[in-house]
Amino acid sequence: MKADIISIGDELLKGHRVNTNAPYIAKALGTIGIPVERIVTCSDDTESIWHALVSSLQDADIVLVTGGLGPTRDDRTRKAVQDLLGRGLVFWPDAYERIAGIFRLRGRELTEEMRDQAMVIEGSVPVANTKGTAPGMIIDCGQRFGNHHLVLMPGVPVEMEAMTTLTVIPYFAPMSGSFIRHTPVMTMGIGESMLAGMINEVEDSMPAHTTLSYLPHAAGVRLMVSTTGRDRDEVDAENRGVVDAIVSRAGDYIYATSDASLEEVVVRLLVERGLTVAVAESCTGGLVSSRITDVPGSSECFLQGEVTYSNAAKESLLGVGRATIEAYGAVSEQVALEMARGCLERSGADIAVATTGIAGPGGGSADKPVGMLCLAVASKQADGAVREEVSTLQHFGDRSQNKARFSEAALRALLERLRKTASVVTRDP
Amino acid sequence: MKADIISIGDELLKGHRVNTNAPYIAKALGTIGIPVERIVTCSDDTESIWHALVSSLQDADIVLVTGGLGPTRDDRTRKAVQDLLGRGLVFWPDAYERIAGIFRLRGRELTEEMRDQAMVIEGSVPVANTKGTAPGMIIDCGQRFGNHHLVLMPGVPVEMEAMTTLTVIPYFAPMSGSFIRHTPVMTMGIGESMLAGMINEVEDSMPAHTTLSYLPHAAGVRLMVSTTGRDRDEVDAENRGVVDAIVSRAGDYIYATSDASLEEVVVRLLVERGLTVAVAESCTGGLVSSRITDVPGSSECFLQGEVTYSNAAKESLLGVGRATIEAYGAVSEQVALEMARGCLERSGADIAVATTGIAGPGGGSADKPVGMLCLAVASKQADGAVREEVSTLQHFGDRSQNKARFSEAALRALLERLRKTASVVTRDP
Repeated sequence: MKADIISIGDELLKGHRVNTNAPYIAKALGTIGIPVERIVTCSDDTESIWHALVSSLQDADIVLVTGGLGPTRDDRTRKAVQDLLGRGLVFWPDAYERIAGIFRLRGRELTEEMRDQAMVIEGSVPVANTKGTAPGMIIDCGQRFGNHHLVLMPGVPVEMEAMTTLTVIPYFAPMSGSFIRHTPVMTMGIGESMLAGMINEVEDSMPAHTTLSYLPHAAGVRLMVSTTGRDRDEVDAENRGVVDAIVSRAGDYIYATSDASLEEVVVRLLVERGLTVAVAESCTGGLVSSRITDVPGSSECFLQGEVTYSNAAKESLLGVGRATIEAYGAVSEQVALEMARGCLERSGADIAVATTGIAGPGGGSADKPVGMLCLAVASKQADGAVREEVSTLQHFGDRSQNKARFSEAALRALLERLRKTASVVTRDP
Repeated sequence: MKADIISIGDELLKGHRVNTNAPYIAKALGTIGIPVERIVTCSDDTESIWHALVSSLQDADIVLVTGGLGPTRDDRTRKAVQDLLGRGLVFWPDAYERIAGIFRLRGRELTEEMRDQAMVIEGSVPVANTKGTAPGMIIDCGQRFGNHHLVLMPGVPVEMEAMTTLTVIPYFAPMSGSFIRHTPVMTMGIGESMLAGMINEVEDSMPAHTTLSYLPHAAGVRLMVSTTGRDRDEVDAENRGVVDAIVSRAGDYIYATSDASLEEVVVRLLVERGLTVAVAESCTGGLVSSRITDVPGSSECFLQGEVTYSNAAKESLLGVGRATIEAYGAVSEQVALEMARGCLERSGADIAVATTGIAGPGGGSADKPVGMLCLAVASKQADGAVREEVSTLQHFGDRSQNKARFSEAALRALLERLRKTASVVTRDP
């Protein structure tokens, strides 16, 4: 079985909106072993929709369409499908009940338009919309179209996502009869070619139904180990075998074998070990704190952050010496160290990270170019002493890229310190 | 003239990457009046590429292809085009010089593979790659394909973006002969239907070549005023007329008539007026500071931020009273006010904003549910007094949506305070 996705909407063609629905559906289909062959974005006029449907229904066993299902005059998907299949509409009481309920809650009157939204195409399996009003449909298109299936869903992401997960995937899983398992292997601090050298043997002896791909991500390389087959247990076992082999060879550079972000791994490690963290930021401007606090439950380990953009703030909030700033400049390893030390002491945290650098576009010089980052970590040792580390890195992006990479480097430094277990005090969780 | 975009790459079909290249190209083509009719994503095998090319070259005057141009074996676009057009390759010395230069800089040896990257298709206009190695190409496909044009670009976003802006758009602009002007009108604090009611008259009397669309964004509604025509001055004038009419009716809710973010407008206003800002954050965890410091030049107005996640940090960094926290709870208007006041006093800034709330998923209660935000602004008045304002908002998203909306609300509160000119002290810039 294979699938096509058709995304309908003029706003997508004008570039005013990025198509996030198609990758969501593609990923979900991937989990039940149905590959996507084409993603087509077309205009929301009836003719364009009609052409896209005809073209995709020829080859693809399943054609999933998002967009153009709603009460406004721009929404013409249902009409195009009716024309193509020569079918009428039938009333679906469940959808009407839901729509009426929503309107009652909001104290608004039900219009005729709303009743129209509860009409689904004859012979379709209606798909409940748990997040909105317009129902979706799964349609067997009949012998004329090789009994290929058409799935109609709204373009609103939350509505489409709920329908895909709750109804569409369970509906097609038994038909597919094959499974796919993707396992991401997240690495950091190593380039693609060096990593490839380390896991050469694994790649050369890989089982037939498993593939390995390299995707760059902000901190390093994301490996994706993908296995397909008809027996879920066998697929899982084969996939796990390859992942384990990679970890045994390149484990030092691997921080997760899931889609976890660096901040999730850092927070998990901190919470597991009952440790607390604080952050002192200059050039990252709050991004490191914000990323840590993106993780649910981070309040268990994150105490505070200081965003010290001005020199005065570095002095008053972190106790950086004016003399240090005057002697070495605000962007220097000396200042980074004093920031981390001050942050550790004043917050009472077990580990602190500090960033000072030049995000750009202004502020660079020959000595200290745009993209330069001084990064320090201070941590309490088991013996009560404070361990300090500092390094200088150079990146080459624009302001937002630099901020992202600077924050990635800070999280990486925290993680590396935490992984050297003995050197950070461990508390009873 | 009309265009198709073909995005090549298995990682797009598997949903492992979101296609941001296509909207970038579509937007750029829009500025020279070339509409995109279809966006097709296909696999990177030669046959899929060949089929997509044949299908698009039938209808579209310009077919823009991204991906599959590079040194690895996955990159098969050039080969597919050669097969389709029956053309050979020629050596492009400029590209070779650039590639050799990059290798010299990195101290690496030039391989035969690298020489291959400097080969372009016979009869093409080579497109310099200012951000990477593989050159792009603009190809007149000849009479067999109605002299339709093919544009080949790498899939790496920064390389594709530079080629589009520097070469592709200037190349096709004279051929198009028509122009389009999109002006975004950014509103905040008003819903779609209320806004539509305010600008009804403008919509009803809109000139023939102008359209108005409503797109929701995080802070409110983004209106897009689009005008097309063959005379650039007329297009601009007609577009400006409609934008002015909208501003005159709904100006109170409009914060920009460009794609400016709230933080850009806030920073611009602060810098123009020589004012400084500081931020005290609990539930937004550094995101407000990070967004302000995303803006180039923000160091001119942003002094510092305190991310006070723990109660101890609220007390030590901002001077919030322990009694206040005990009496009202950390998420309360009283604590928000003390945070803003403490932040203003200790930072020496002219205006300060503070957030405390419950981002979720944990930490909510019947009284203080997930999504609740207490928001305070403190600002210095012309007479030396401090003006304080506080409000409580309720959102209904998940953790990351709530953080985003909370930060949007904080920036909006800063902007609203700054727009009430008289109430914030104005300095000589």
